[in-house]
Amino acid sequence: MKLREKDSFRKKEGLFFIEGARLSQDAALSGVEIKELFATESAMSKYSDYIRSVENVAERCFVISEEIAEKLSDTKNNQGVFCVCKMLDKKTIIGKIKYNGKYIALEDVSNPSNFGAVIRTAEAVGLDGVIVSGGCDIYNPKSLRASMGSLFRLSVFVADDLSEYIVELQENGMKVYAGVPDSSALKITEADMSGGVVCVIGNEGNGITEATKNASTNLVTIPMKGRAESLNAASAASILIWEMMR
Amino acid sequence: MKLREKDSFRKKEGLFFIEGARLSQDAALSGVEIKELFATESAMSKYSDYIRSVENVAERCFVISEEIAEKLSDTKNNQGVFCVCKMLDKKTIIGKIKYNGKYIALEDVSNPSNFGAVIRTAEAVGLDGVIVSGGCDIYNPKSLRASMGSLFRLSVFVADDLSEYIVELQENGMKVYAGVPDSSALKITEADMSGGVVCVIGNEGNGITEATKNASTNLVTIPMKGRAESLNAASAASILIWEMMR
Repeated sequence: MKLREKDSFRKKEGLFFIEGARLSQDAALSGVEIKELFATESAMSKYSDYIRSVENVAERCFVISEEIAEKLSDTKNNQGVFCVCKMLDKKTIIGKIKYNGKYIALEDVSNPSNFGAVIRTAEAVGLDGVIVSGGCDIYNPKSLRASMGSLFRLSVFVADDLSEYIVELQENGMKVYAGVPDSSALKITEADMSGGVVCVIGNEGNGITEATKNASTNLVTIPMKGRAESLNAASAASILIWEMMR
Repeated sequence: MKLREKDSFRKKEGLFFIEGARLSQDAALSGVEIKELFATESAMSKYSDYIRSVENVAERCFVISEEIAEKLSDTKNNQGVFCVCKMLDKKTIIGKIKYNGKYIALEDVSNPSNFGAVIRTAEAVGLDGVIVSGGCDIYNPKSLRASMGSLFRLSVFVADDLSEYIVELQENGMKVYAGVPDSSALKITEADMSGGVVCVIGNEGNGITEATKNASTNLVTIPMKGRAESLNAASAASILIWEMMR
C-alpha cells in the first residue's frame, strides 16, 4: 500500500491515505477533498452515520472485503473504513501568518505520534497554528490518527528553512522562543507571551538546530527538578503551548 | 518471550524485562535488582560504558547471538542489551504519601506510551510521585522505554480502588482534582494548588470513573477553544502536572 507507507510516493501523487470512520468523517466535514472511500459491508452498518457524511462528498465509493481491509490497515483491529484524499495546501506563505498570533514550531520532530499529539493539543487549546520544518511527514497515517483530525482544521505552515523564516517573523514583530533543556535559559514562566509568539520544539534526540537557536529571540526552558534530563517532545510542546495560551 | 508479553506472567514471577543499554544502566544505577543481563558481542563493544555498570550489579551475565537478540527484542533496531529485573516494591502505603506533596493519579490509563510519558514528565518537573489505579501494567516494556528510566526513580503508588483512596487523602488535608473535558468545571488556572494536591487523569476513551469524580474535591478542566473535543491523556497530564508545579 504505497500511499500508506511512502512519503515520497504521497508527495508525488499529491494524495494521502487515512483510516478510521471518525477520522474519515472529520476529513469530510473539514472540506478535505476525498477521492476514494473504501468501506466493508460490516463497517457500513456499524458506522453508517460517519460513512454517510463521507459518501456525500467522496468522488468514488467502493465496497471492499474484510481481507482487503486487513491489507489496507496498519492497525490491529481495523474499522474497515479508508479514504484516499487530496493533500491540503499547507505551504509557507508568510502573509498568512497572524503576526499577533500564537504558534508552535516543530523542527525535525520525527515521531509521528508526538507530531500528531502536538497538533491535537494545539487545536484544543486554541493556538493560531503550527509551523512545521522537517521531521515526519504531516500526512503520515500514525500522525493523522494521533491528531484526531485536528490537522484538517488547524493552520499548518511548512517552512523549508526555519532559521530564515523566524528572522522574517521577528522582523514583523513576533517573539520566537527556542525551547531547550538548559537551566541557564530564560524560564518559560518569565518569558513575555504578549503579542505574537512562536515557541520552537526540536528533534527528539538532537533538540533545536544551532542555526535556529541563534536566530531566535531567546532560549527558553521548562525548569526541571528531577533526574530526567529532558521531557518528551510532545510533553514539552504541551507545556509551551499552554504557557502561551493560559 | 513470556516476561515481555504477559502481565500475569510478570506478576507471578515478580520479575520484569527491559531492553536497551541506557535503560539497563538507569535500572542498575537506580538500585533495581538485576537478575540477568544478556548482551551481544557487538553491544559489549558499542555500549561498553553502559554495560559495565550493569555487569557490576547483575547476578548473572550472558553473551547472546544476534539471532537471540532479535527474538528477545520488540523494537526494529535492537541494541542487543536486555535485563531481567526484580519488580520494585511499589504498593499503596498511605503512610508514605506526603500529605503536602504534589501527585498525579492515573486511573485506567491504558496506552503504555502515554503512561511512560507521564512518568517521565512527572519526574522531570519534580512531582513527588504518581498514583496508579488500573490501566496498563507499569512494567510494560513500551511504558518503561517511554519513561526513560523515570519509573525506577519516582515514587509510584498502586491504588486498587482510587475513589476510596482519595477519600483517605482528603481526610488528611489533600485536595484532589479530577480532570474532565467539561467547560462547566473549575478552570485549572483557578484551582488552589497550595499544599497537598492530587490531579487525576482518566482513561483515554472513557475518562475518569463516576465514583472517582464523586469522591474528588473538585472537577477541573483545561479550557479548550478549538474543535478538538479533548486532549490526549499524556498532553492533559503534562499541563496538569505543570500547573501544580509552575
